[in-house]
Amino acid sequence: MAEEQAVTAAGNEISDTFLAEKKRSDEVLGKLHANPGAYTMLTGDRPTGRLHLGHYFGSIKERVAMQNLGVNTNIIIADYQVITDRDTTEHIGDNVMGLVMDYLAAGIDPNKTMIYTHSAVPAENQLMLPFLSLVSEAELERNPTVKSEMEASGHALTGLLLTYPVHQACDILFCKANVVPIGKDNLPHVQITRTIARRFNKRYAKKHPVFPEPAAILSDAPEIPGLDGRKMSKSYGNSIMLGATAEETAKLIKKSPTDSERRITFDPVNRPQVSALLTTAGLCTGRKPEDIAEEIGEAGAGALKQYVTKVVNDFLAPHRERRAQLEKDPDYVRDVLHDGNKRANEIANQTLDEVREAMGMKY
Amino acid sequence: MAEEQAVTAAGNEISDTFLAEKKRSDEVLGKLHANPGAYTMLTGDRPTGRLHLGHYFGSIKERVAMQNLGVNTNIIIADYQVITDRDTTEHIGDNVMGLVMDYLAAGIDPNKTMIYTHSAVPAENQLMLPFLSLVSEAELERNPTVKSEMEASGHALTGLLLTYPVHQACDILFCKANVVPIGKDNLPHVQITRTIARRFNKRYAKKHPVFPEPAAILSDAPEIPGLDGRKMSKSYGNSIMLGATAEETAKLIKKSPTDSERRITFDPVNRPQVSALLTTAGLCTGRKPEDIAEEIGEAGAGALKQYVTKVVNDFLAPHRERRAQLEKDPDYVRDVLHDGNKRANEIANQTLDEVREAMGMKY
Repeated sequence: MAEEQAVTAAGNEISDTFLAEKKRSDEVLGKLHANPGAYTMLTGDRPTGRLHLGHYFGSIKERVAMQNLGVNTNIIIADYQVITDRDTTEHIGDNVMGLVMDYLAAGIDPNKTMIYTHSAVPAENQLMLPFLSLVSEAELERNPTVKSEMEASGHALTGLLLTYPVHQACDILFCKANVVPIGKDNLPHVQITRTIARRFNKRYAKKHPVFPEPAAILSDAPEIPGLDGRKMSKSYGNSIMLGATAEETAKLIKKSPTDSERRITFDPVNRPQVSALLTTAGLCTGRKPEDIAEEIGEAGAGALKQYVTKVVNDFLAPHRERRAQLEKDPDYVRDVLHDGNKRANEIANQTLDEVREAMGMKY
Repeated sequence: MAEEQAVTAAGNEISDTFLAEKKRSDEVLGKLHANPGAYTMLTGDRPTGRLHLGHYFGSIKERVAMQNLGVNTNIIIADYQVITDRDTTEHIGDNVMGLVMDYLAAGIDPNKTMIYTHSAVPAENQLMLPFLSLVSEAELERNPTVKSEMEASGHALTGLLLTYPVHQACDILFCKANVVPIGKDNLPHVQITRTIARRFNKRYAKKHPVFPEPAAILSDAPEIPGLDGRKMSKSYGNSIMLGATAEETAKLIKKSPTDSERRITFDPVNRPQVSALLTTAGLCTGRKPEDIAEEIGEAGAGALKQYVTKVVNDFLAPHRERRAQLEKDPDYVRDVLHDGNKRANEIANQTLDEVREAMGMKY
């Protein structure tokens, strides 16, 4: 494989290439805002639980904005990714339906955005085979995200986790996405996707390239900390779920830890817990956390928590109302998913057809 | 993965388990002859060229026999396997059509046997994803056949070659084949297929197992040597192609090397080239090579070659006649393949549906 050397460099020197990727991201974002209809975006989530405020401010909000800008937006519910590092698909049906409801409640419009499940699109998954022929085992092993996820899981490295960057390439390329919003950690996946697209085009489709080489969109969205100041994560119990009730949210905020200093100040390094509450309130109100701290002042953590509870619940009220409506109409939610799956299959069948044509595999 | 230990043992001590596999193979063959309708068989070929006499006596003849016995026979044209270790799909369309013609000419009846191409069955290929979650990278790497094919190819190990035993599991299990005729070298593939079937059933389908654990059928068919006494292989130019003309065959046999001893004897160890000619004649006539040697005696290599040419061409004449007819009717050949692909898709869709059901992935 001629390009192996280049990929080694990309894999090992990821931090060095971050600035270049960020520059490309900014350029593409500029062009996207000028001509959104020329861009196709792929994002998605693993259906391992409900979405929380971190998901909302970290990605869902941006997806809605892209959708409303006129970008061709696509959301994959990556159900097969659930089993990359665990032995069970327990509750997966509930989780998938919960995700669809969270998307719709958050403003995703199924007439503009295709929502579909990974397992429902065989022609997308078939791309795994030609794509796996375009990468070496060594390239797969070098992927730092695969390594860290494997270590975090405490599992032996499954064949599915090892080949996970190739599934992501299938997800991205089957709908010919040319922009992929990601966190920094997932840059290697977009890079291997570009490698696969480039090698496929070079090997089989020189005259009429089948696949775009997608750009990573590196978000400037602030990372919202969990209520205890750590990373917001379901497993830490520090997350405000989009679908929780106002009472559940009030309870969770009430029991969140703070520190012994009465005066409220915004100081993420030295006072992560108080600052997490201020950041949360800031995001929900559009205010600066510093201003909120100033306002609360000597009133202390109790007053801060009251304020945070109020603004979070106010912010989420319309979302929760829409979600409650959707929960009463599971047939509609299912229809949205089935329509998305149908469209995804049409697109995947078309792309696979082009792949077969390029490879001379139409007999 | 609980069964990892067992698989290590199976992988490393393949020669020790051969006798056990052979015993199981003989037992299953006995049962199969008593009740052929209870058995589903999967075999196939890579479309890298035309079939030769080695393929015929080594596997095609047995497939026809199984088909006519009433076993549910299925033949995969493994077109994606072409790119496990090479960078091109050149001539693949011709090779696929040539294979279908060779099958039909050899007695494969498309009303009894499903002939299909790997790339035409997306739902079969989707099984890759759940199946890859059931094996570890370490298990994939231990596969001795993958290692030796990689070394033979001179390529870096591609993701497709590394995961090749898992595609084979998809090929075998999508149609729930319970018997797989193979050479000894491919035993590890059948063993990993059983592991995948067992793990899937245990993890997701305890009450109603979805997959059988297939038995390897280890053939007693003699290996037919090439005309030069080496392994019959297209790349050695020592193979009698099923689709060659009588003249081409005569020419090839005429220029095949022999030794300086005039008297013809059957002695594979010391006289591999003369013995290869005798073996070939023996297979085509049903006679013992020793008897043929005795008959030719002092008449020497020239007389032997004349005899071999005659019996090979006589043997292949009906095959070649049928093949010539088929070449005149490419639409029919294509229809056979398209019908097979349609059936394979129906079966694969049904199996994938059961897999989704078992995994709770029907939303």
